[in-house]
Amino acid sequence: MKKIINDPKNVVDEMVQGLVRSYPEYLERIPETGVVYRHDLKNIQGQVGIVSGGGSGHEPTHAGFVGDGMLSAAVCGEVFTSPTPDQIFEAIKKVDSGAGVFLVIKNYSGDVMNFEMAQDMAEMEDIKVKSIVVDDDIAVENSTYTQGRRGVAGTIFMHKVLGAAAAKGANLDELEQLAQKVLPNIKTIAVALSGATVPEVGKPGFTLGEDEIEYGVGIHGEPGYRREKLQPSKALVEELVGKLNQEFKFEKGDQVAVLVNGMGATPLMEQYIFMNDVLNKLADLGLEVKFTKVGSLMTSLEMAGISLTLFKVSDEIVENLNYATDTIAW
Amino acid sequence: MKKIINDPKNVVDEMVQGLVRSYPEYLERIPETGVVYRHDLKNIQGQVGIVSGGGSGHEPTHAGFVGDGMLSAAVCGEVFTSPTPDQIFEAIKKVDSGAGVFLVIKNYSGDVMNFEMAQDMAEMEDIKVKSIVVDDDIAVENSTYTQGRRGVAGTIFMHKVLGAAAAKGANLDELEQLAQKVLPNIKTIAVALSGATVPEVGKPGFTLGEDEIEYGVGIHGEPGYRREKLQPSKALVEELVGKLNQEFKFEKGDQVAVLVNGMGATPLMEQYIFMNDVLNKLADLGLEVKFTKVGSLMTSLEMAGISLTLFKVSDEIVENLNYATDTIAW
Repeated sequence: MKKIINDPKNVVDEMVQGLVRSYPEYLERIPETGVVYRHDLKNIQGQVGIVSGGGSGHEPTHAGFVGDGMLSAAVCGEVFTSPTPDQIFEAIKKVDSGAGVFLVIKNYSGDVMNFEMAQDMAEMEDIKVKSIVVDDDIAVENSTYTQGRRGVAGTIFMHKVLGAAAAKGANLDELEQLAQKVLPNIKTIAVALSGATVPEVGKPGFTLGEDEIEYGVGIHGEPGYRREKLQPSKALVEELVGKLNQEFKFEKGDQVAVLVNGMGATPLMEQYIFMNDVLNKLADLGLEVKFTKVGSLMTSLEMAGISLTLFKVSDEIVENLNYATDTIAW
Repeated sequence: MKKIINDPKNVVDEMVQGLVRSYPEYLERIPETGVVYRHDLKNIQGQVGIVSGGGSGHEPTHAGFVGDGMLSAAVCGEVFTSPTPDQIFEAIKKVDSGAGVFLVIKNYSGDVMNFEMAQDMAEMEDIKVKSIVVDDDIAVENSTYTQGRRGVAGTIFMHKVLGAAAAKGANLDELEQLAQKVLPNIKTIAVALSGATVPEVGKPGFTLGEDEIEYGVGIHGEPGYRREKLQPSKALVEELVGKLNQEFKFEKGDQVAVLVNGMGATPLMEQYIFMNDVLNKLADLGLEVKFTKVGSLMTSLEMAGISLTLFKVSDEIVENLNYATDTIAW
């Protein structure tokens, strides 16, 4: 294991320290927790707070999306491990200013359980809380840590859409309706070229041959659906867009937003080449691309690979995607 | 070689296509060249244009810094290969609106030669051009492709400072004075954990042992100054800040900007941990940190490692670093 760290036990604490010290104009930390919140919380008094979080190792998710027009706070668990209910509860209390708090949860059993417990704790203190569980990864049903489908990079679109709506003054019920409306329209699928190593474990979660790839791998190295020899970018796009289209059953003229997401070690050069092929393929399908984003946003430590998220959008949703946002990573 | 590409010969062309199609609100391309320029050039009529560029493989550098308050255009050469003089000349012509064009060149022999030829070509057409050659890498004197010191991640600080000054209305002479003033105050040093593979070459430029690192490696895999066993982050910081301090000879109270830059495959988690240790060390030295940035900004394809840039700053320079900027990657 070759990593730039000190003690593997302290990676998250030291990371959060480094993060908050690097960006004090964006983030503050609730001392001795993995909770980071907007430095300018006082400017959004009266708005619904948006909280997300989960295991660490997916940076810049989630903390990189805390800021104007997106998240109010993020809860950083240990690497690939759900944050505890009391940490999530601290985040909820911190960002509630009377209008309630909306939780964006990725669909992993630990996250769902702990966020729900935190929601219960908050409601006992009369804080109104609603939530959505994002399950955008179409690769497999059920997985190492998940009942149903996993929550992956499409969660960032959820952050963006809800963050914009909250900034525009949507109340808690309106945010819930919006989240439920867009949820089935966000779908993701990935391909991995190499695995990642959790610092405390010390060896890769999975390994692939010199010339081998795996379709459908999760962001914690959960198994995908097929291994084969490395293919050119265009062939990867055929496979992944094909799978997504089976789910969406797109019609000509459908509008989509596209996120090409690097898994950690994949150069931007490859992500742009892949996006170019994706846009060609979507044009072939007669889709209208209304929004595009490329970058390593929902990573899996140093995994190499790419995920592709398609989001079937209306003009109103595109407006939210383009809504002014000021965060470290959007 | 496991890369998400199609034909190794076409990686730059397909990358630039993907880039411009992903971000049409920022970038346009001069057809059949590697030149990308600001979509809103008409909004900066009368300002000095700022052009940078170089070999590809360092994304998001340079195209990711084209936009309001930074670069007017970027010239993307083949991977790790200088762009041709005629491409640079096209970029100069595109962004000149009468006030002249300032070139930011990284110190590699090919880049210096080709940018100077382009400058000559432009001057023959009565376009005023000035330039700066950035040589911030203190690791070694002379190198595979360089006389003197190499230009690396500190170049991004130069883009930012000059871009802000140009946006505020500085003329060509003022930009030249500013560039010459800040140049000796920007210094960088790196440590590599693994090498990178140029697509057309097909094998890594260098290899390191399972547990080995190399200090001072360049962004094209140029040799550094020492190999040893992997050290904890704190020890890497001791070494790199120590080397930088030998050059700067800091005094208590000196003000600095800090850039921790991932080389491509290094997770943000590690970059934040490293930054945390850097900030501790700079505090020990009595320095006042005025600006911080963390991210994979000047990469070397999928190289793993980090570079550390320190920039001795005045309040005026800090103002330029904080000046409003709208690009894909800053």
